[in-house]
Amino acid sequence: MNETSDFAQAWAIADKLADAARVETLKYFRTATLETQSKKAAFDPVTVADKNAEAAMRAILAEARPDDGILGEEHGAVEGTSGLTWVLDPIDGTRGFISGSPTWGVLIALSDENGPLLGLIDQPYISERFWGGPGRAETKGPLGTSPLKTKGTTSLAQATLFSTYPEIGTQDERVAFERVAAEVQLTRFGCDCYAYAMLAAGHIDLVIEAGLQPYDIQAPIAVVQAAGGMVTDWQGRPAHNGGTAIAAATPELHAAALGLLA
Amino acid sequence: MNETSDFAQAWAIADKLADAARVETLKYFRTATLETQSKKAAFDPVTVADKNAEAAMRAILAEARPDDGILGEEHGAVEGTSGLTWVLDPIDGTRGFISGSPTWGVLIALSDENGPLLGLIDQPYISERFWGGPGRAETKGPLGTSPLKTKGTTSLAQATLFSTYPEIGTQDERVAFERVAAEVQLTRFGCDCYAYAMLAAGHIDLVIEAGLQPYDIQAPIAVVQAAGGMVTDWQGRPAHNGGTAIAAATPELHAAALGLLA
Repeated sequence: MNETSDFAQAWAIADKLADAARVETLKYFRTATLETQSKKAAFDPVTVADKNAEAAMRAILAEARPDDGILGEEHGAVEGTSGLTWVLDPIDGTRGFISGSPTWGVLIALSDENGPLLGLIDQPYISERFWGGPGRAETKGPLGTSPLKTKGTTSLAQATLFSTYPEIGTQDERVAFERVAAEVQLTRFGCDCYAYAMLAAGHIDLVIEAGLQPYDIQAPIAVVQAAGGMVTDWQGRPAHNGGTAIAAATPELHAAALGLLA
Repeated sequence: MNETSDFAQAWAIADKLADAARVETLKYFRTATLETQSKKAAFDPVTVADKNAEAAMRAILAEARPDDGILGEEHGAVEGTSGLTWVLDPIDGTRGFISGSPTWGVLIALSDENGPLLGLIDQPYISERFWGGPGRAETKGPLGTSPLKTKGTTSLAQATLFSTYPEIGTQDERVAFERVAAEVQLTRFGCDCYAYAMLAAGHIDLVIEAGLQPYDIQAPIAVVQAAGGMVTDWQGRPAHNGGTAIAAATPELHAAALGLLA
């Protein structure tokens, strides 16, 4: 996929997918869990929203991009013939979703065998979207449209670090994470994929996570890299297959954090 | 303050204050910190936003409610003659604010010597407001207007607990907090005052914090209590003078958590 027109078409599809996921997820966001006498009939709004949003996106792809593969959280993998795969996480941050927090998101990436070519992060409740790919790094939200550009922070002592939970990954991973947390200016928890969007937008400096699936990280990689940041796993290798991830505002900051993680 | 008309006028003023704070805080939300060579000239957007928003609210009160007292985070206390005091926190969650996170808020309460009579929590970026006082418990946001009502959760094992930081309060307070965290279904961090709004809206069950000022907690008390929840300090006493706070969806859940904190 090299032509400008190929990317233009892919971006149009990505937006169409995100628009559909926005509708489906908001139908169930902040609705009560309906518990019934029978456990079988228990209704879990986040599971229904997750499945319905992914189904809506798959229906669009079946029509518009039948040759592409699909890797989704809810409905598994479909092989394609084009060499391209849509990587979908209809609700990243299900714990945030069930808590009413507006920091969960819809993640959409288009990838080849080397990783994501483009990606977007969408926050349906705020009506906010973050795009990243070749020649494109921008966001649109309640305050309008603006470019995405990571901060210039190079030292851990001046960095703000985000992660989803204090109890990150395995015991060894947690110890490694805490070596970095001990050196930074501020550590915050609980923002799910929204933390990568804030890194791309230049508000925070580091996101460190473990236990990731490919669909958790491919869209964030595309958005952060397009904004000038750097994303790898904790060994400095490509992160798009999941596992651990460290995203940093600058190569210098990435190197400093990686030295403490490895 | 007993008459319906007194409350109607107070609510109108509270909204006017929140509208003014929304304008002033959004001028600086997600703007870059401008660092200069001279430390004296360093510019801190959250401090400027905080001070300007409180000054705008004080100017409204000086005109509309000259007999009421004011207690604000940035500009201190002004004694009144009416027995009523406006309690203002222009930006609750400054760390969230500087990180670009949409979970900080503007807190406004009107109190007498027994605590808050009414309060509101406003999230300017999302355009979302939560009101609580006699006969009023409601929210207005991107999905419209809806009533606030806490969940019916009575057991810790089914509860979702929020706090701002894992490193809550003193060492003793942290140990007490962790006794509760060990018993609940899910613990999440990082939502600032937004967690109290989610408790009032019926999405989470417990908020436990320490190290609070009166202006951090008075508006949340009013909103949570109006929605059917219970708020005290960790000894079960009124929480409106600051210190520790535990807010719970039901009296049963409050008692269960208090037993582990005390």
